[in-house]
Amino acid sequence: MEAELTFRMAGPEDVGKILFFIRALAAYEKMEDQVVATEELLRKWIFEERKAEVLFAVAQGKEIGFALFFHNFSTFLGRAGIYLEDLFVLPEYRGRGYGKAILKKLARLAKERGCGRLEWWCLDWNRPSIDFYLAMGAEAMEDWTVYRVAGEALDALAAE
Amino acid sequence: MEAELTFRMAGPEDVGKILFFIRALAAYEKMEDQVVATEELLRKWIFEERKAEVLFAVAQGKEIGFALFFHNFSTFLGRAGIYLEDLFVLPEYRGRGYGKAILKKLARLAKERGCGRLEWWCLDWNRPSIDFYLAMGAEAMEDWTVYRVAGEALDALAAE
Repeated sequence: MEAELTFRMAGPEDVGKILFFIRALAAYEKMEDQVVATEELLRKWIFEERKAEVLFAVAQGKEIGFALFFHNFSTFLGRAGIYLEDLFVLPEYRGRGYGKAILKKLARLAKERGCGRLEWWCLDWNRPSIDFYLAMGAEAMEDWTVYRVAGEALDALAAE
Repeated sequence: MEAELTFRMAGPEDVGKILFFIRALAAYEKMEDQVVATEELLRKWIFEERKAEVLFAVAQGKEIGFALFFHNFSTFLGRAGIYLEDLFVLPEYRGRGYGKAILKKLARLAKERGCGRLEWWCLDWNRPSIDFYLAMGAEAMEDWTVYRVAGEALDALAAE
């Protein structure tokens, strides 16, 4: 089924489409109230500051999925990796292998760029996704937890 | 005690010092055998490809700690954050608040750059560090686990 899928990197003219996918993902996760991103912010941070990249998956001339990723860095490997922040396929296009096709595209991109790893995170209750990742050869970094300082706590730490 | 501490961003001439700190951290974590980074790789990925930045903490004219960080990206916030990959203070300079001083410096940098978050990860058995982070206002992202495809699994996924 994948033969019909093509890929293209998003450009500044795509900020509306990127925001559409971010909101669609947030709606799917029932977290729409947390989205404060705007087209202006995405234009600045993705296409001017270049802190992330966006890949669209295209079927029948339409963007049906997106992946937003950036480069992370491994000190032990001494090189960058690709960190997949968000991947979303429109619900009506699920079950055709498009999610896996996007991950494979990112794996090829990682190899082309000389990166040592492809990483992402997943909610612990999302068992179908976890089983899918493990079957793909992914390793769960079970012993680690991410800590986050944001909002007022970040203001306070910066001002301390 | 912090008054004596100053900071400077590392440049290409510092790759030897950066590798020294990476190896010191790996030795501390008993993972020295996992370090394949070289000065050449660090020069390429940090100072040519610009995929990470390194901050040195300096006391009495000597680099006594380092932080290696890069920018990550939040789709919900629509902006970048700072992700702290490694922080290490030489054992003989511990207990003087230098670790916290480095985190505060990174929080200021995050605010200066307009970033929404400062994040890092920590081993789950490292209770003293976790308590320290929580007291600082950090939130543990308990419901999430990072998945990693690397090495032969990455080759296989890219070639599939």
